[in-house]
Amino acid sequence: MRVEKDSLGEIAVPRDAYYGIHALRARGNFSVTGQTPHRELIWAMAMVKKACAFANRQTGLLDETKAKAIFKACDEVAQGALDSEIIVDALSGGAGTSINMNINEVIANRALEHIGFEKGRYDIISPLEDVNMNQSTNDVFPTAVKAAIVKLTGELAQEVALLQGEFQKKEKEYAKILKVGRTEMQDAVPVTVGQEFSAWAEALNRDWWRLNKAVERLRQINLGGTAAGTGLNCPKAYIEIAVEKLRELTGLPLAKADNLFEATQNTDTFSEVSGFLKTLAVDLIKIASDLRFLSSGPRAGIGELRLPAVQVGSSIMPGKVNPVIPEMVTQVGIKVVASDHAVSFACSLGNFELNPFLPLIAHEIIGAIKMLKNCCRIFREKCVSGITVDELRCRELFDKSSCIITAFSPYLGYETCAEIYKEALATGKRVEELLIEKGFFTEEEIKSITQPQELTTPGFAGIKYLRARLLRQHTQSRNYRIRHREDNNDCEE
Amino acid sequence: MRVEKDSLGEIAVPRDAYYGIHALRARGNFSVTGQTPHRELIWAMAMVKKACAFANRQTGLLDETKAKAIFKACDEVAQGALDSEIIVDALSGGAGTSINMNINEVIANRALEHIGFEKGRYDIISPLEDVNMNQSTNDVFPTAVKAAIVKLTGELAQEVALLQGEFQKKEKEYAKILKVGRTEMQDAVPVTVGQEFSAWAEALNRDWWRLNKAVERLRQINLGGTAAGTGLNCPKAYIEIAVEKLRELTGLPLAKADNLFEATQNTDTFSEVSGFLKTLAVDLIKIASDLRFLSSGPRAGIGELRLPAVQVGSSIMPGKVNPVIPEMVTQVGIKVVASDHAVSFACSLGNFELNPFLPLIAHEIIGAIKMLKNCCRIFREKCVSGITVDELRCRELFDKSSCIITAFSPYLGYETCAEIYKEALATGKRVEELLIEKGFFTEEEIKSITQPQELTTPGFAGIKYLRARLLRQHTQSRNYRIRHREDNNDCEE
Amino acid sequence: MRVEKDSLGEIAVPRDAYYGIHALRARGNFSVTGQTPHRELIWAMAMVKKACAFANRQTGLLDETKAKAIFKACDEVAQGALDSEIIVDALSGGAGTSINMNINEVIANRALEHIGFEKGRYDIISPLEDVNMNQSTNDVFPTAVKAAIVKLTGELAQEVALLQGEFQKKEKEYAKILKVGRTEMQDAVPVTVGQEFSAWAEALNRDWWRLNKAVERLRQINLGGTAAGTGLNCPKAYIEIAVEKLRELTGLPLAKADNLFEATQNTDTFSEVSGFLKTLAVDLIKIASDLRFLSSGPRAGIGELRLPAVQVGSSIMPGKVNPVIPEMVTQVGIKVVASDHAVSFACSLGNFELNPFLPLIAHEIIGAIKMLKNCCRIFREKCVSGITVDELRCRELFDKSSCIITAFSPYLGYETCAEIYKEALATGKRVEELLIEKGFFTEEEIKSITQPQELTTPGFAGIKYLRARLLRQHTQSRNYRIRHREDNNDCEE
Amino acid sequence: MRVEKDSLGEIAVPRDAYYGIHALRARGNFSVTGQTPHRELIWAMAMVKKACAFANRQTGLLDETKAKAIFKACDEVAQGALDSEIIVDALSGGAGTSINMNINEVIANRALEHIGFEKGRYDIISPLEDVNMNQSTNDVFPTAVKAAIVKLTGELAQEVALLQGEFQKKEKEYAKILKVGRTEMQDAVPVTVGQEFSAWAEALNRDWWRLNKAVERLRQINLGGTAAGTGLNCPKAYIEIAVEKLRELTGLPLAKADNLFEATQNTDTFSEVSGFLKTLAVDLIKIASDLRFLSSGPRAGIGELRLPAVQVGSSIMPGKVNPVIPEMVTQVGIKVVASDHAVSFACSLGNFELNPFLPLIAHEIIGAIKMLKNCCRIFREKCVSGITVDELRCRELFDKSSCIITAFSPYLGYETCAEIYKEALATGKRVEELLIEKGFFTEEEIKSITQPQELTTPGFAGIKYLRARLLRQHTQSRNYRIRHREDNNDCEE
Repeated sequence: MRVEKDSLGEIAVPRDAYYGIHALRARGNFSVTGQTPHRELIWAMAMVKKACAFANRQTGLLDETKAKAIFKACDEVAQGALDSEIIVDALSGGAGTSINMNINEVIANRALEHIGFEKGRYDIISPLEDVNMNQSTNDVFPTAVKAAIVKLTGELAQEVALLQGEFQKKEKEYAKILKVGRTEMQDAVPVTVGQEFSAWAEALNRDWWRLNKAVERLRQINLGGTAAGTGLNCPKAYIEIAVEKLRELTGLPLAKADNLFEATQNTDTFSEVSGFLKTLAVDLIKIASDLRFLSSGPRAGIGELRLPAVQVGSSIMPGKVNPVIPEMVTQVGIKVVASDHAVSFACSLGNFELNPFLPLIAHEIIGAIKMLKNCCRIFREKCVSGITVDELRCRELFDKSSCIITAFSPYLGYETCAEIYKEALATGKRVEELLIEKGFFTEEEIKSITQPQELTTPGFAGIKYLRARLLRQHTQSRNYRIRHREDNNDCEE
Repeated sequence: MRVEKDSLGEIAVPRDAYYGIHALRARGNFSVTGQTPHRELIWAMAMVKKACAFANRQTGLLDETKAKAIFKACDEVAQGALDSEIIVDALSGGAGTSINMNINEVIANRALEHIGFEKGRYDIISPLEDVNMNQSTNDVFPTAVKAAIVKLTGELAQEVALLQGEFQKKEKEYAKILKVGRTEMQDAVPVTVGQEFSAWAEALNRDWWRLNKAVERLRQINLGGTAAGTGLNCPKAYIEIAVEKLRELTGLPLAKADNLFEATQNTDTFSEVSGFLKTLAVDLIKIASDLRFLSSGPRAGIGELRLPAVQVGSSIMPGKVNPVIPEMVTQVGIKVVASDHAVSFACSLGNFELNPFLPLIAHEIIGAIKMLKNCCRIFREKCVSGITVDELRCRELFDKSSCIITAFSPYLGYETCAEIYKEALATGKRVEELLIEKGFFTEEEIKSITQPQELTTPGFAGIKYLRARLLRQHTQSRNYRIRHREDNNDCEE
Repeated sequence: MRVEKDSLGEIAVPRDAYYGIHALRARGNFSVTGQTPHRELIWAMAMVKKACAFANRQTGLLDETKAKAIFKACDEVAQGALDSEIIVDALSGGAGTSINMNINEVIANRALEHIGFEKGRYDIISPLEDVNMNQSTNDVFPTAVKAAIVKLTGELAQEVALLQGEFQKKEKEYAKILKVGRTEMQDAVPVTVGQEFSAWAEALNRDWWRLNKAVERLRQINLGGTAAGTGLNCPKAYIEIAVEKLRELTGLPLAKADNLFEATQNTDTFSEVSGFLKTLAVDLIKIASDLRFLSSGPRAGIGELRLPAVQVGSSIMPGKVNPVIPEMVTQVGIKVVASDHAVSFACSLGNFELNPFLPLIAHEIIGAIKMLKNCCRIFREKCVSGITVDELRCRELFDKSSCIITAFSPYLGYETCAEIYKEALATGKRVEELLIEKGFFTEEEIKSITQPQELTTPGFAGIKYLRARLLRQHTQSRNYRIRHREDNNDCEE
Repeated sequence: MRVEKDSLGEIAVPRDAYYGIHALRARGNFSVTGQTPHRELIWAMAMVKKACAFANRQTGLLDETKAKAIFKACDEVAQGALDSEIIVDALSGGAGTSINMNINEVIANRALEHIGFEKGRYDIISPLEDVNMNQSTNDVFPTAVKAAIVKLTGELAQEVALLQGEFQKKEKEYAKILKVGRTEMQDAVPVTVGQEFSAWAEALNRDWWRLNKAVERLRQINLGGTAAGTGLNCPKAYIEIAVEKLRELTGLPLAKADNLFEATQNTDTFSEVSGFLKTLAVDLIKIASDLRFLSSGPRAGIGELRLPAVQVGSSIMPGKVNPVIPEMVTQVGIKVVASDHAVSFACSLGNFELNPFLPLIAHEIIGAIKMLKNCCRIFREKCVSGITVDELRCRELFDKSSCIITAFSPYLGYETCAEIYKEALATGKRVEELLIEKGFFTEEEIKSITQPQELTTPGFAGIKYLRARLLRQHTQSRNYRIRHREDNNDCEE
């Protein structure tokens, strides 16, 4: 054990520990979740520390030896080599102070080793005066949080694009397969299976777009603002260098905020990106729900889609395969929506020059992005890519539903169609059959109307072949009955 | 009473009613909230109806007489003249069918009057076949909802900008007033009152920006998609004309969605804009909370700000004035955050080709925007514009807090400063006084360090005058103690 | 116009208005929602005012003439005769002060009329010194809110019980109708339609129970606590009489809180009852969702249930009937869950001796209860009572699903059953048919196994008839293969 | 590696692994959170498995050797010895199937070792046919979830009681210390520091009560319901024994639900207990917020309370101590409120005979309880127990605020008091001083009025000594001016 000291007194720290007295106290103070900060946040903190050390060296405040040792330690922390030394709870109080100090201590002690000193020799390299030089938790922590989120947001956007692409493949594959469209759970009008895939893809496309846009605001960092964003005691040259170096080290499009003061206390950009995540979650829940219902059965459900079997479904019922991936997707979606709630709540509770609940905000958003990233990948690989369409079942339900009837209404009128529809439901005969039987259409005419393309795109189905007939119906209709009155009134637009 | 009929049977409708059988049934089916659809939604529905009637006339499907009567009726509905005839509950089931039909009936009956017929003569003008011609609830209702939201979002953005402007006025007015900055509720470093106003203004600036951006996606409407977005039975010419006419009538930048099918079922754009509203709400809650605390007292609180008294505060305590406007703002903020919750939840529950819960989504978002609009205006007029700063109190707390001490630490070192800080707290003497007493600085030097500009912007305060001294301190500091060891190690970046 | 005055100055009030200067200012300050306080809250406020006036008379502080006039005015306000005079916004700031003062003014002015004075003669009867005598908003408002909630909770519980009863009727009616049970959307094991109704009923039964229990804590009122719950300037005798009188006037089981101080600031009982409401909402959403899916079709869905048609479903698709009542129920459910969110948020933001956001809390909870009350009634009357079961469809899907196979597995083993199941799915033959064909069971044996009672209650189906066979299968099974090894090990429990 | 097989094919499992093919597939399918099920849930699953194995042995279905081996393995799993073998993600899809199967596999393989077989010899002891005998995920998983929650709820209640007790100690300690009470952030009336502690304690007292009550419904388990709650293939004798054994093994008051069918699909009891947790969270946030504000300063804030310093506050500002424990408490509170959101959402999405999202529900509730448990303990140990009151500061603000003035208003009238109050604010003189100066009261009289007990409990302060004076003031007041009119009106109650 080695003894470390701060203004509250002394504490024994395990000899081998890279963390120090602050982290040790903090672990005792905040062990509520059993979770430590996310890997990506540790990476970002280490990058920020390195950028700051670099700026301090460039401006002559940190000597070369220490700077190099700190650089090396930062790289190691960034790569995850010292993750087990990050011991503070993810929901520590103190607006990130404990996370910052834990990182400072680990870097200092590791750097000390690199230059041949024992851990704890803070007289040589100090967590506070060297590693944290010109910094405050209140600028480095928000900066690191933003860097981590910007990085992960990009990765998530990539996964969303891949998932969208997979849906688009299916869209093309099943572009011409007719099926019954359903609104409010009731049989409605003809659609194609491809259209359904296109709708799922398109929502994801907008999610991808939103994630990209979020970065525009998240990239504005408050590095150099120190305690309250005023930049007190923080040399201007240092700030410029540190921000530029951080861009370089991370490869992320970070920029110094115009107003460091407001960027230190405002958290609306976190609330915004969290809102985008919940919108993605909402889309995923909707898609997963559609998949669960469309694959229901195998016999007593809808059964139009078949999801790949990724595991045995039941320990008691033979042969049961459950939509377990969409279920997982739904759970992740719900969790992200709830996370957004936590983020909004926490963002609204900022006070004066700071929001002390940034550790929570960071942990929730980073956690949500990581879950979504995993979720989109698994959804694509284990489910969407393997979806097959039971075309026979689609056709069976399509015919049974008589949803085709609406397409004939421009030619026959609403009421005639309604009667034929009822007869079809009552007798079980197909609508087409009845229409021919009753002499309304020839088989050829029906064929021209019931082309998938005709039934599922704007316009009157079959109008190219049947224009004359359409007009006849129309001129006979009630729409023209009052023409004789039209001169007698004075309605003006 | 007149008797109307639908496929479920006959019902007596009050003779004077412009609504008809569908609305009457719907009122009975859904009277849960006691609220009817928002005025702005009624306006938008009427505009959509008029645009569709126009397109039907242009394409020869609706004759001139009826078209003109319908136009006139639409205008009246749009202007609010028939609001009392919109009787269906805001949370009606049916994905908007009842709201659509209520509007159709009112327009049909009013149009009938215009051409000299009695209400109920649907053989002459039919709510369904004429007013709703080529339409489905599933395309006109979402279109109207988006139009209403786009319009209101613009109005809200305007109010947000005005509120921001008011904060900016205060920012300028109090740019040089020093006060103690507070982080985690504790006295921290010097800031200016102007900076605090700037932070509130800047968050609102981003909110304004977000509201403007939201329109980009909300303006994509699915008019012409009919029941499931496929556009079945909807002539292409009609669609183009209707959308163009709707742009013209509303003055809004609406556009036909590329994929009508997906635009009919996906609701992510609603979730997105709702997320922007909750972010504005979060900012308002934070600002209101700061105002409540900074104006606390008058004697036993912080009391740096004084909010205008807009009403007597207490029936039992003489002279009490409460922060009632910020309290109202907070309540609106909470309600909007909760609304976002409802919207996310509802958006996630879409099924297949439609989301049946669009009435709820619309009612929540429109309600939230209207509340926020009122709230921002009242906040500005009744509170922010009248805020005054108690400069003496700011100074008193500033001095008492000794927050200035940090500015001297580059010249004296952290430890010396810590001791002086303790002495100041213990004796009640001002830091400046002690520094002169002890011979650390001359009065002039202290003046040069404690300029507001120096204390509240990046850099070492007073460095222009005291550069030499800063360097001296620095070279003596521990940062340079290990210089002699630096050749002996091999740290490489 | 008459002129009224307060410490902020003079204002002209419409001559006929019963409200006064405070309400008028407040309307201007808080018009954000366009909604005024709920009817039930106005009733409760009037009852509290009457009880307090009564206690003031009994303790000799209010003279008989004024007391009687105030009593009469309170009754009128309670009955709703003056609702249009309650003009303050439901979300007014000020912790209820404006609602309280609006009520005080209306009562004072109405009482003045009763004794022959003009409105505004506050020198005769004062809203503050007479109507509000010995009161503070901070005790009368929370008291009224609790009274309103206790009353409405009882009414809601009654509606929940009626809805439960309706489900129980169906439970009995369809107790023996077999259908396929579904878990994770997949065909599972046999259940009865009655069991499904019983599950919905049972959840509601617990909701009823919870609502009743909530009253235990809500009934603790802080009347007499005045401004901060300490009861300063509030005579003890008055408190006892006022509380007792309020019990009598309202018929509600209200009681003075043991600790008036804590009862003035804590809002956990509101959070608790709101949590019960959201649990009821959650149950309703689940039930509504089941009904929507079980009634899906009519041909391309599940179609086991038929919901009564309460209105025509579609303007474009003939004969479509949508599950509009369950959709409305779902929307109400979502709104209540969101309301709970608002309530939790607001409750957590109390400060020191008071929670200034009680107007929001009250408005949300009262609104939620009223919506739920309407919702349960409509759900029962317009939907549940008219549900019919398509027994043929239940049987068709039951047979098709082969869900019966699991019942034979105790007799044949899991693997044999799995093979028969596959053959059934492949050939379309019924499981029973195959079992007889293959000689596994006689028709009689199968009958004894497939009794609804046997298939849907704990135990091996048909065991009474087939015990011997079960044992045979069992002793041959792998469970006994390792018996010979059992002496050689030393596992101890 | 060993090879395992299921109906989807073969997979290589690490030779040393106790988990098997199902867990391995599941890990691949669901790795989204990086978290495995909570320790307490694993314990509960193991206890359920043991109870079931016991019941199977007692009913002769499981032979002694295997039973004993399984018992032993269950004990080891329960104690945590095999936690690293539980590899499935906490948010696995499949309604708990993967968690159940992972446990089954670990128990089977460990049991095999106990009787001298190699892992993987499922022909000897099968995860499915032996360990899971007579069980379905759908009954054992909900049962285990409830057992875990009941256990943890009890532990949490205990911590809540201890925290309450700590506040009560302070309540007694500071019972007589006067301070200014604050409503809506404004100086109001006198209260005691003890009263503030009592309010915090009392809210927690109700939380404790609620947690205890929650168990009444949570203890109803569906063990024996198998796949859909009907109990198909589950011997009645087995059910009774298993439930009884589970009670005994866990020491928890579990009971078989009356209706196993409904208990399998309904999740309202989870929503209910989650609502209780969020109410506790709401209380904690409110208390933590009060502590943060009351300890603000040290010089430019309120500073009435001093929280113990548990760590150094700032890396840049000397001597800063932040309210880090209340900040952590707030973060936990926010997270629990958000968790409740996730739970409500998930509970509402049940379908038919099952809610497939129970893994999420369980993970959230168990996680919330554990966080709250840790949070309450740390809050008590590290913060509440060490709170001290700055009595001088309390007195200083008390005097400055003139909040005492209200106590004199029964003797002097509201208007005279208002004037004295204004004079006190303007001159900085104490109210008492002015009252004596102006000859309103003797020093003795003032003393009798300003006793803490008098100022902070119901009634007129000092009435025992000054009754005569009170009456005199009263009879002169305007309340009696209209007495002469009273016979002339006819107001009747």
